[in-house]
Amino acid sequence: MPQITAVTVEDVRFPTSLTGDGSDAMNKDGDYSAAYVVLHTDGTDTTGAPLAGHGLTFTIGRGNDIVAAAAAQQAAHLVGWDIDEMAADMGRVYRFLSSDSQLRWLGPEKGVVHLSLAAVLNASWDLVARRASKPLWQLLTDMTPEQLVDIADLRYLSDALTRDEALEILQAQEAGKAGRVAELARRGYPAYTTSAGWLNYDDDKLRRLCQEAVDAGYGYVKLKVGADLDDDIRRCTIAREIIGYERELMIDANQVWDVGQAIEWVRELARFEPLWIEEPTGPDDILGHAAIRRAVAPIGVATGEHCHNRVMFKQLFQAGAIDFCQLDTGRLASINEIVSVLLLAAKFGVPVCPHAGGVGLCEMVQHVAVLDYVAVSGDLTNRVTEFVDHLHEHFTDPCVVSDSGHGTAYVLPRDPGYSTRLHPESIDTYRFPEGHYWASAPTPGLGNIGVAAAVKP
Amino acid sequence: MPQITAVTVEDVRFPTSLTGDGSDAMNKDGDYSAAYVVLHTDGTDTTGAPLAGHGLTFTIGRGNDIVAAAAAQQAAHLVGWDIDEMAADMGRVYRFLSSDSQLRWLGPEKGVVHLSLAAVLNASWDLVARRASKPLWQLLTDMTPEQLVDIADLRYLSDALTRDEALEILQAQEAGKAGRVAELARRGYPAYTTSAGWLNYDDDKLRRLCQEAVDAGYGYVKLKVGADLDDDIRRCTIAREIIGYERELMIDANQVWDVGQAIEWVRELARFEPLWIEEPTGPDDILGHAAIRRAVAPIGVATGEHCHNRVMFKQLFQAGAIDFCQLDTGRLASINEIVSVLLLAAKFGVPVCPHAGGVGLCEMVQHVAVLDYVAVSGDLTNRVTEFVDHLHEHFTDPCVVSDSGHGTAYVLPRDPGYSTRLHPESIDTYRFPEGHYWASAPTPGLGNIGVAAAVKP
Repeated sequence: MPQITAVTVEDVRFPTSLTGDGSDAMNKDGDYSAAYVVLHTDGTDTTGAPLAGHGLTFTIGRGNDIVAAAAAQQAAHLVGWDIDEMAADMGRVYRFLSSDSQLRWLGPEKGVVHLSLAAVLNASWDLVARRASKPLWQLLTDMTPEQLVDIADLRYLSDALTRDEALEILQAQEAGKAGRVAELARRGYPAYTTSAGWLNYDDDKLRRLCQEAVDAGYGYVKLKVGADLDDDIRRCTIAREIIGYERELMIDANQVWDVGQAIEWVRELARFEPLWIEEPTGPDDILGHAAIRRAVAPIGVATGEHCHNRVMFKQLFQAGAIDFCQLDTGRLASINEIVSVLLLAAKFGVPVCPHAGGVGLCEMVQHVAVLDYVAVSGDLTNRVTEFVDHLHEHFTDPCVVSDSGHGTAYVLPRDPGYSTRLHPESIDTYRFPEGHYWASAPTPGLGNIGVAAAVKP
Repeated sequence: MPQITAVTVEDVRFPTSLTGDGSDAMNKDGDYSAAYVVLHTDGTDTTGAPLAGHGLTFTIGRGNDIVAAAAAQQAAHLVGWDIDEMAADMGRVYRFLSSDSQLRWLGPEKGVVHLSLAAVLNASWDLVARRASKPLWQLLTDMTPEQLVDIADLRYLSDALTRDEALEILQAQEAGKAGRVAELARRGYPAYTTSAGWLNYDDDKLRRLCQEAVDAGYGYVKLKVGADLDDDIRRCTIAREIIGYERELMIDANQVWDVGQAIEWVRELARFEPLWIEEPTGPDDILGHAAIRRAVAPIGVATGEHCHNRVMFKQLFQAGAIDFCQLDTGRLASINEIVSVLLLAAKFGVPVCPHAGGVGLCEMVQHVAVLDYVAVSGDLTNRVTEFVDHLHEHFTDPCVVSDSGHGTAYVLPRDPGYSTRLHPESIDTYRFPEGHYWASAPTPGLGNIGVAAAVKP
């Protein structure tokens, strides 16, 4: 019965560029940001508090206002919708929001209008999960195979995955679902850390953070590479000194290389036996990733945080281009498109290791990883979900990572929703440009980094 | 010496949805629109008029404001730049505008921020051509091979096209450039028409427009298909009755099919011997286009108007996915990225037949087609550029199409610039939402089509 009564969209930016958190070879000065959508209703949750849905997409600063403006246009049309009707047919909500052909022209299914669609749909999924008083992973794993396929967007996929094949994949996992939930409740979902290896950190900080990762129980550590080969060799040497070879090292170039250069560079780093090279070249280059993968095996190729839709993932699988699928919950159009990618990955036997970090991505991917294991792949082999220890303090239900004796892992979330509700005080402080922080920042209205300085040719 | 002193960006929308102009199986109700950038300077042109650069990208209505907002952010940083310094190194202007890593995150190189980048760079190219008192095609064909390669963005392309190969392609055409310019001055650049076949036109209008196309000297006519097979068969029958088989018929599905469905549907229409099937499936599906091409030969596969960057075109060529490259001057990042695609197309032997229509696309593509023939491919075989007879009256230097005895062709443009300056009265009338037209439209502030009606699930 409750209805959506109003929509608010906030441009929230955190000053991460000041500390070098999040720095890599392509993105040297990001201010981690969220285009944050709230769907207000006239209902209450089981505690009597006002019922609302909260969703976001992640950007790195400038342009977050553009994404917010697009999200506001898309979300405005949800006012008046009945929450229970939405919950009964989330495929319809997805088709409604994605079928405005005039906005579709601006992608299609990519860039700003797809990022904003992700934010609006993430808020919608948070809303229906809160309405059901379930964490989102549970709402989804409680669905039947038919219900899950009905919410998935299978358009343009039938040459790789038919509806019947999708149903078969899900039906095969039905019997073991409860057991796998119990297993995750016990041991959590495996996590790795990126917090140690940002490119702007000096060697001492790298050494210290690698040691902290080992002490915290991590079996996996990721380093940023790609700006300078000598630096990369020195940093990988330090990392391996600390973590040894009984733990996995991953490296991430954030798209800076051409195909040939990627192959040469990775071969220079092969002595450090990385588990994967992440984003070795432009994210649209399916055939390029396939060529790199053939050339650098047995080092794996990982990509996906900038893979903009299910059609691109379909081709990455068809071309045998990747060993690890790093889908992103702020870039794909929420659960409706993510389920499609999980199904494709299962069909092609590629493990899904979601991209996280940023703002709220860790909070979201824990639900996706659980969904994948419980209902879709039924497999933890080679699966490990990114964790970055930043900005969680801004969320009312932050993700929790701990070592339960099986290696560091995400603790199964229990609070209703998609875990992406921000504290009101965080919004007030970091709302751009008028929040307390930004109003008194070095260059008010421009962010931490003056644009001219950032883009000087 | 003259400098850019100010930037204005306009959201201009034309009410094309009211007449069904531009209607196709995916886009039933577009209001053809332009995010229109003007770079104002303190200089004058050779006539003593104020010197300014005018550029646009094309959208179909809602969201044009979002693109305009992105263009305003990008273009603002050009204030203070010296026009002659820009003209001397347009590669630097491109790198400056495209290297804001915070905005890059929103693509990268796709969607709203790439459309807006196209608009800003199109205005920059118009400006430097006007400063040189040359039509843009001439400014470009007067460049040396080194100069042309220096303005091109070759990043991520080296596995398919090296800088040396690019130079060789251009050097091979140097000797014949003057002769080809003289030839185009005589006969124009071959054109085909899409005006006859919009999906919402009834059979009588289709018949009449096909006859008019024949009477006007067109050797090529294109129809929209893909909504209903029986309709398509009836419409193709009518078109062939009128144009016969001595002229070419092309069909365009605007992305509505999955791969298998495209193959079946096109085989049903094969009896009409279309020259090409355009946009048979999702524009990101490189491998899907390759599969369709293998299955429907000898019917050609054409795509590109939604191909969002040079990396996607590279792969379409590498995968043998297309017979015709329909690059778009509002979607690629202006001449800097278009030159890269022309070079790739020449290397792989794929003819370039640019997408046009919309708002101002015909005005721009005439320059690109001339550049391709004169300086890059040196070939007219299987090349024909789209022409749609809409909205040209809004431009101060509209393109002209006529039949000089060699079939209908674009007349070589002679006015300085990129031909995309709008009449001030057109802007005043169609500025959204406050222009005279929209202020008195049926649903002021929403466009012609109420959003709820447009996207009803």
